[in-house]
Amino acid sequence: MTKTHNIAILGASGYTGAELVRLIATHPGMAIAALSAHSKAGQPMAQAFPHLRHLDLPDLVTIDQIDFSEIDLCFCALPHKTSQDVIRALPRDLKIADLSADFRLRDPAAYEKWYGNPHSAPLMQKEAVYGLTEFYREDIRTARLVAGTGCNAATGQYALRPLIADGVIDLDSIVIDLKTGVSGAGRALKENLLHAELSEGAHAYAVGGTHRHLGEFDQEFSAVAGRDVRVQFTPHLLPANRGIIATVYVQGEPDQVHDSLAGAYADEPFVHVLPMGEHPSTRHIRGSNFCHIGVVADRIAGRAVVVAALDNLTKGSSGQALQNANLMLGEDETTGLMLAPVFP
Amino acid sequence: MTKTHNIAILGASGYTGAELVRLIATHPGMAIAALSAHSKAGQPMAQAFPHLRHLDLPDLVTIDQIDFSEIDLCFCALPHKTSQDVIRALPRDLKIADLSADFRLRDPAAYEKWYGNPHSAPLMQKEAVYGLTEFYREDIRTARLVAGTGCNAATGQYALRPLIADGVIDLDSIVIDLKTGVSGAGRALKENLLHAELSEGAHAYAVGGTHRHLGEFDQEFSAVAGRDVRVQFTPHLLPANRGIIATVYVQGEPDQVHDSLAGAYADEPFVHVLPMGEHPSTRHIRGSNFCHIGVVADRIAGRAVVVAALDNLTKGSSGQALQNANLMLGEDETTGLMLAPVFP
Amino acid sequence: MTKTHNIAILGASGYTGAELVRLIATHPGMAIAALSAHSKAGQPMAQAFPHLRHLDLPDLVTIDQIDFSEIDLCFCALPHKTSQDVIRALPRDLKIADLSADFRLRDPAAYEKWYGNPHSAPLMQKEAVYGLTEFYREDIRTARLVAGTGCNAATGQYALRPLIADGVIDLDSIVIDLKTGVSGAGRALKENLLHAELSEGAHAYAVGGTHRHLGEFDQEFSAVAGRDVRVQFTPHLLPANRGIIATVYVQGEPDQVHDSLAGAYADEPFVHVLPMGEHPSTRHIRGSNFCHIGVVADRIAGRAVVVAALDNLTKGSSGQALQNANLMLGEDETTGLMLAPVFP
Amino acid sequence: MTKTHNIAILGASGYTGAELVRLIATHPGMAIAALSAHSKAGQPMAQAFPHLRHLDLPDLVTIDQIDFSEIDLCFCALPHKTSQDVIRALPRDLKIADLSADFRLRDPAAYEKWYGNPHSAPLMQKEAVYGLTEFYREDIRTARLVAGTGCNAATGQYALRPLIADGVIDLDSIVIDLKTGVSGAGRALKENLLHAELSEGAHAYAVGGTHRHLGEFDQEFSAVAGRDVRVQFTPHLLPANRGIIATVYVQGEPDQVHDSLAGAYADEPFVHVLPMGEHPSTRHIRGSNFCHIGVVADRIAGRAVVVAALDNLTKGSSGQALQNANLMLGEDETTGLMLAPVFP
Repeated sequence: MTKTHNIAILGASGYTGAELVRLIATHPGMAIAALSAHSKAGQPMAQAFPHLRHLDLPDLVTIDQIDFSEIDLCFCALPHKTSQDVIRALPRDLKIADLSADFRLRDPAAYEKWYGNPHSAPLMQKEAVYGLTEFYREDIRTARLVAGTGCNAATGQYALRPLIADGVIDLDSIVIDLKTGVSGAGRALKENLLHAELSEGAHAYAVGGTHRHLGEFDQEFSAVAGRDVRVQFTPHLLPANRGIIATVYVQGEPDQVHDSLAGAYADEPFVHVLPMGEHPSTRHIRGSNFCHIGVVADRIAGRAVVVAALDNLTKGSSGQALQNANLMLGEDETTGLMLAPVFP
Repeated sequence: MTKTHNIAILGASGYTGAELVRLIATHPGMAIAALSAHSKAGQPMAQAFPHLRHLDLPDLVTIDQIDFSEIDLCFCALPHKTSQDVIRALPRDLKIADLSADFRLRDPAAYEKWYGNPHSAPLMQKEAVYGLTEFYREDIRTARLVAGTGCNAATGQYALRPLIADGVIDLDSIVIDLKTGVSGAGRALKENLLHAELSEGAHAYAVGGTHRHLGEFDQEFSAVAGRDVRVQFTPHLLPANRGIIATVYVQGEPDQVHDSLAGAYADEPFVHVLPMGEHPSTRHIRGSNFCHIGVVADRIAGRAVVVAALDNLTKGSSGQALQNANLMLGEDETTGLMLAPVFP
Repeated sequence: MTKTHNIAILGASGYTGAELVRLIATHPGMAIAALSAHSKAGQPMAQAFPHLRHLDLPDLVTIDQIDFSEIDLCFCALPHKTSQDVIRALPRDLKIADLSADFRLRDPAAYEKWYGNPHSAPLMQKEAVYGLTEFYREDIRTARLVAGTGCNAATGQYALRPLIADGVIDLDSIVIDLKTGVSGAGRALKENLLHAELSEGAHAYAVGGTHRHLGEFDQEFSAVAGRDVRVQFTPHLLPANRGIIATVYVQGEPDQVHDSLAGAYADEPFVHVLPMGEHPSTRHIRGSNFCHIGVVADRIAGRAVVVAALDNLTKGSSGQALQNANLMLGEDETTGLMLAPVFP
Repeated sequence: MTKTHNIAILGASGYTGAELVRLIATHPGMAIAALSAHSKAGQPMAQAFPHLRHLDLPDLVTIDQIDFSEIDLCFCALPHKTSQDVIRALPRDLKIADLSADFRLRDPAAYEKWYGNPHSAPLMQKEAVYGLTEFYREDIRTARLVAGTGCNAATGQYALRPLIADGVIDLDSIVIDLKTGVSGAGRALKENLLHAELSEGAHAYAVGGTHRHLGEFDQEFSAVAGRDVRVQFTPHLLPANRGIIATVYVQGEPDQVHDSLAGAYADEPFVHVLPMGEHPSTRHIRGSNFCHIGVVADRIAGRAVVVAALDNLTKGSSGQALQNANLMLGEDETTGLMLAPVFP
């Protein structure tokens, strides 16, 4: 296989950008042709991310310095709102795997409700395919613009979509209690992300149903169920860099719950359902594109606990984006993504 | 005030034992007269715990080397099962603050169900007062034997007891999703407690209603409600040493939930209810005897999220025990316990 | 004892400010009368630091809102350069314990060399007493302005001053390899202080003799030796919040090295020299005002390794400042400072 | 390339065993044919290491259950002393990459001095090639038994061997102050390796020249220098899982020091010398086979600080072993080893 696909990464100085580079570095069919960054434009990538020093990478440039006519696929790892403005101005025939929140919601009103501003590219919003690969695979193959999911949204959906589709749980009592590592918050300078503030403890955030990923849950779960579904969702910040674990409380027969999940993912290369009664740890998917899901029967009859774990930077964003890009480019879906988790 | 009370600590080489010493070190009315340990008997306390090097402490001895006739109150920080055998053999007039699980459950059958063995001191089991200070204060004052609560059990009860007592929540849909630091698991040598295994990630344990602290929830919540109450409870292990945070999902009017908690703890020195909409972090109670509780209304009408945080080694065990000991000895309840949390 | 001393803390929204409040909270002879902050002025202290929520504290104000006529002693926990400008404008008879770098160096040229700007209050620079309590105790008692030391500078000096004074080591081959927790870098928003950047690894900084605390080493060691002394000093940042450990390589007879240190600190309440061959951990002084020092003979004859550990926020800054304030106010030197370390 | 080489890993239930599996999983020329473990024999590998769940691996067996006639190369990741006994009994024509300490020292007396017991296979000790690939490459190609180096020993040698060989530093004043993550201590159940004991702080160990890796420094540096060389070496344990950083103090002209290192490693795929004045972090080599080295001139003329960082589990042991195995099997040296570091 020759490196036939030229790749650009916009927003390469953030964590998802660096993760894309890490993954693509071992991909035999992709060549990184351009890397953009805003405040760090002009720097070698190894200055922004010294762990990529061994790679022969183009320097960081501004977006307008990139010649997109030579690019086969562009990853956009930009902040939301910026993303829609940038993508609107890119060539219309450029394949785009977007990692931002901008094209996840299909309904402009829903977008404005959760993100606080009207969408500037509503037509492209409509065109975009939701990037949860296992459930939108065929659409992604032919899509021009794929909207990467929220990392929390992906985790919750892996635990719940088959259960809702199969009708094995009550739709009005779903609780998703989620714990995430800090890299999901990005590289922004915020007091609460400092090591001294964040390490050695834990706290909840966006409590009570205010987290934006609820927009994705509402859209997707309602579509699957064919009726409105509203879940409770509380994310917590862990003193760890990578990894999301979602503990999902459902009312339904535990065996049916396990059967539903095991059946849905039986042939999936990245989503693994553990034997009944076992449950996962973020440590065992760290740095990888795998998602582990466990089901345990509760002592209260008719209730089950579903636990799902994935790495927010990999399966939750950059790995997912690469998986989708493989499909968009006609590559094997798993290429560059079979790296084993790093433990300890 | 003179140091009139002679104190013994059995099981002083564990974390709760060391925490007792740390707290008592600044207590003006208590003198540490004896410290016991099993495998470390014969060592200076500063060898088992070099952070206590500055204190003038008795060496670690075996229990039978202690002259209990000189002891006014004995803290027992021994493993469960050992505890009941040791306490049974102590002088009948010795005041005891037990930190083990052995005297928390009043019903011998419940004890055997959760701990797997018949109780060897059922009469003392009956005599023991449950040590959740804020709710058993008057009984504790006159008790001879006080059973310290489970650290998780304390956290969940601080969040829920007033709500159950006031009848402001549905009793059949309570979910307690709890995250705890690792020191609650003690100093035992287990593979899953190694730094390389535990750090940088999170996992659930005792999923599905198998954690022994459920015995306390069942006993106490049912007693408060006047009917059987069964909650769902999933503990998770955090990559942090101290601190428990419980995220409790309840069905009830959020304002009533907040009012109930704020009213119940209005005069409590250690339990602080935050303003409506705010919620706590384990970092802000670390190393202290405080419990912070927050209430947030969910976006789904009629549901609220209650978040409670405390330090498992302090308010969850050793601080609680000292608070109880103060009452048992006629000291002011807060003596030695007003230390501010250590942050960062 | 009544709370006769009214205290102000300038720069109370930083970590050393919060640590001062934590310590003073249990001090029977001090009342916190004013707390200043710059960008957080107007906030309750519990908003800036929720772990201090249980205390009845004045709100954060700007410095010019403070009536200094009612203040007996003022702690200044301001950034360097700001500190000298603020202190210059304070009443001339106000006792000041400064925690900044501004008055540590007595020589204006040395100050300018290390800090890059001329000093704006050179007369006060001359007046200030260097705040390493154990070595300047008598001067501090009568001082109006005491300059708290650098936290790294304190650690290295505890390990080395007696050895230099006693002439038991070679002065031209001293190497100080130091590792520090991140809280010493303060609460500033810098990319390299983010949890995702700092945790799970270690790196050196200010390598090659560029760290500003070398100005203190040069000044103090040369004064003690009566000749110029230049040490090598490499600090490293640890993925931990509190604690400094300095590994100091000296050429000298190990027994003499141990004797010198043991003798120097025999009567000191806070500096503890371990038995020959033992060495300390940052975990065992965490949150306390203690400094632990160990000496080990190297396998190479005539060489010793001295290891010193202290908590940068306590003995390295705020605890030291309170120790000095006690002396300045005629209180017992140890009041409020005998808190045991918090472990684990 | 077909998977022509059948591989066995003895001691696969430890961290270096798991790391070998992780790396070999993406190696196109190796197939894992057998995995042995002692107490975990009989378990699926995914039970010992759930992060390897996605791989199709043989179950763990005892060593005597392995048919070595089908094995082309055997990795031994066994404890020292066990290793020599096991290897002595393996077929004489089996290629072996040993990760233990048993064949690192060529002199039986040196082995006994550092490890406390006489060697049980002195002839094989003589036969073994020291596995520091960059310096023994040609011998390794034709070796039957290659002795993996100590992880600390590798780090120190990467920093120092060229300097000693080129004669650019004083040989009698070398100080290696090293900090290592905890995975280097293995998966053994020891109190000091518990999360609650190890996290949030740092301490030195084997202070004063007692660490066994000094045997390797003595052997190798003396051989390079052609005279006895004795360095000072103090390892410290970091609250992190992976990564070693060695801060090496040398007397010599900084530019010559940098030139020597830059020249020595100019063509090496895994050892990267940073531009003069820059220095590495363990975070930037985490999970990879790279070693980063920096040189900084000290403010004292004629002195330099060399800082080297590598991942103890990869370049320090399992990655090194795979690099050597590639050579022994005639594969390209870098196959399976070009994985980018995982950051954050």
